[in-house]
Amino acid sequence: MGIMEENIMKIFAYGIREDEQPALKEWEGNNPEVDVEFTDQLLTPETAALAKGADAVNVYQQLDYTRETLSALHELGINKMSLRNVGIDNIDLPAAREFDFSISNVPVYSPNAIAEHSMIQLSRLLRRAKALDKKIANHDLRWAPTIGREMRMQTVGIIGTGHIGRVAIKILQGFGAKVIAYDKFQNDDIKAQGLYVDTLDELYAQADAISLYVPGVAENHHMIDADAISKMKDGVVLVNVARGNLMDIDAVIDGLNSGKISDFAMDVYEDEVGLFNEDWSGKEFPDPKIADLIDRENVLVTPHTAFYTTKAVYEMVTQSMDASLAFIKGETPAIAVEY
Amino acid sequence: MGIMEENIMKIFAYGIREDEQPALKEWEGNNPEVDVEFTDQLLTPETAALAKGADAVNVYQQLDYTRETLSALHELGINKMSLRNVGIDNIDLPAAREFDFSISNVPVYSPNAIAEHSMIQLSRLLRRAKALDKKIANHDLRWAPTIGREMRMQTVGIIGTGHIGRVAIKILQGFGAKVIAYDKFQNDDIKAQGLYVDTLDELYAQADAISLYVPGVAENHHMIDADAISKMKDGVVLVNVARGNLMDIDAVIDGLNSGKISDFAMDVYEDEVGLFNEDWSGKEFPDPKIADLIDRENVLVTPHTAFYTTKAVYEMVTQSMDASLAFIKGETPAIAVEY
Ligand SMILES: NC(=O)c1ccc[n+]([C@@H]2O[C@H](COP(=O)([O-])OP(=O)(O)OC[C@H]3O[C@@H](n4cnc5c(N)ncnc54)[C@H](O)[C@@H]3O)[C@@H](O)[C@H]2O)c1
Ligand SMILES: NC(=O)c1ccc[n+]([C@@H]2O[C@H](COP(=O)([O-])OP(=O)(O)OC[C@H]3O[C@@H](n4cnc5c(N)ncnc54)[C@H](O)[C@@H]3O)[C@@H](O)[C@H]2O)c1
Repeated sequence: MGIMEENIMKIFAYGIREDEQPALKEWEGNNPEVDVEFTDQLLTPETAALAKGADAVNVYQQLDYTRETLSALHELGINKMSLRNVGIDNIDLPAAREFDFSISNVPVYSPNAIAEHSMIQLSRLLRRAKALDKKIANHDLRWAPTIGREMRMQTVGIIGTGHIGRVAIKILQGFGAKVIAYDKFQNDDIKAQGLYVDTLDELYAQADAISLYVPGVAENHHMIDADAISKMKDGVVLVNVARGNLMDIDAVIDGLNSGKISDFAMDVYEDEVGLFNEDWSGKEFPDPKIADLIDRENVLVTPHTAFYTTKAVYEMVTQSMDASLAFIKGETPAIAVEY
Repeated sequence: MGIMEENIMKIFAYGIREDEQPALKEWEGNNPEVDVEFTDQLLTPETAALAKGADAVNVYQQLDYTRETLSALHELGINKMSLRNVGIDNIDLPAAREFDFSISNVPVYSPNAIAEHSMIQLSRLLRRAKALDKKIANHDLRWAPTIGREMRMQTVGIIGTGHIGRVAIKILQGFGAKVIAYDKFQNDDIKAQGLYVDTLDELYAQADAISLYVPGVAENHHMIDADAISKMKDGVVLVNVARGNLMDIDAVIDGLNSGKISDFAMDVYEDEVGLFNEDWSGKEFPDPKIADLIDRENVLVTPHTAFYTTKAVYEMVTQSMDASLAFIKGETPAIAVEY
């Protein structure tokens, strides 16, 4: 019984959080020919049965998409799966291939969400906001000696001028900061503006603050290590919202302890899986390094929340639902994954 | 014995804080013909004697410059006084006139210091940073439901497009936000960009967030009152780094309580004198309204620290010392006060 003949299309969405519901309902309203059902449960071999009768599933989870899970969907006649996030490393791709799955992800949802967060954190570090916040919470309303620095007075080094790095550059330029940039593959617009330096060493030597926007591929592993830090200015400010494995965190901690690094903001951490997005309040915190960093006045730790804005969530839901619908109609969405 | 004949010029600076010393020493290095002496004490009838032999004094204090104080300087032959800050309302001007004082102030030191602070606070409110910070400090690393909003998605209303308001506009444009502006005297550049609305009511109706950059003159007293707030969008975000008396704080608190105002940042307060820049930790806090606002998750209170950056302090010290020197040389600096 062909779905298209009946003109009834059904998409089942797993793991829908409360903050995703408005976007999902808006999408449903805009697509009256589609029946949308959802659950807050994640997709497992057991919950697969909930999708019975659906033409496609829509998902977002850190939990693995195992052979058993994919097989359970296959037995229900479902072979279309759209991820609301970017990462596909937790999918059993050989099994997906065997069951002929069409898969899509959302590689670009809102570069601004991440770029804004990185620059807000940088500005807070420069303003010594954490120390000042603490004083104010304790009713110490004296401003001295908690003096701030201005964004516009900084030379900021941007490593990686892809989608997110370029938005960060625009924000910095609005503040009037001096931007220098490095990328292995130069972007025409940034080049025309004359922002590139030729080597990372030059960037390290000139930058008052450095922020990373490169992928965590093998060649970038521990790009920021003791050697790189030694080439930076004394009192450099570091920001990492890209990937945890870009930094040797022990070298960064050494730099903080010696004063070589004056301030540091991190949204990502090499060992973040199983640590971030969990509630450890009232429990023993499993990572003493992060506990220590959280407590420091010149460090801002956020648990991979840079992406977490209403606009980003809207894009993740809307783009992935559009892709689910395209698959059902027999089309190939632009964000289909080739695997 | 004329000072100029001897080519020895001496400036005595009062109330020098630790964070002012680097700029003062740099200035001294750049002006070897001037003997600079300073104290951390404020200028009073008693401490006036410290300036004996000086050609000019350089000052910054909330304490009144009384007839007694000015008279004490006059008796030492000193009638040149340069303020490192802007406000001259604590000077006994009739006495200053009688003793023929030349006075200067620093009306523009760093518009960026204040504009940056206002926009950092706005971005923090949008990101729900205070709630997230608290979760993280308590080791609750779950991101939901603390979802943020992006600067670029906001229509921001700027009231007052003078030195500071215009810098705020540039910062917002870097973020990609939509800016609308209102000023009684329109600026050509902002006009050419088409940012002005014709009335405050239009601005109130359209803005998702509103930030103030107008002076606290009588006609602007309680500009933001219950009536103005009622014309704003539901869930509006308010920022005031300009002057405390621009707001009827009770109306703002009502708006926060009802949810009409979703978030609020204040750096100034109508009753701030004697409250801000004091240490109340471990003491009874004298203002229950501010104590309550400090504790709210959707409110950021800073005690008039927007101006407090290394660049602003550098400008305050350098410009005022330049003015002191100009007075001694018999010149009239551009920042001389006509009174
Ligand atoms: N914290 C978060 O919530 C979050 C969310 C999304 C993405 N990210 C991360 O942000 C980073 C940037 O994302 P994007 O969308 O801008 O990626 P992108 O692919 O658009 O840009 C990456 C850029 O890095 C450059 N690059 C790669 N290796 C380099 C190297 N060794 N030296 C210099 N340049 C190099 C590439 O040429 C490219 O221009 C990625 O690591 C991504 O995983 C973080
Ligand atoms: N928080 C701090 O640390 C701090 C420091 C410095 C200045 N400030 C305050 O910031 C504010 C702005 O300073 P600035 O240097 O930009 O001043 P400015 O004089 O350059 O600009 C003020 C602007 O407000 C406009 N204006 C006046 N009344 C108005 C009204 N009723 N409606 C609309 N526009 C009106 C004027 O036309 C002018 O364009 C002032 O209140 C100042 O006291 C705060």
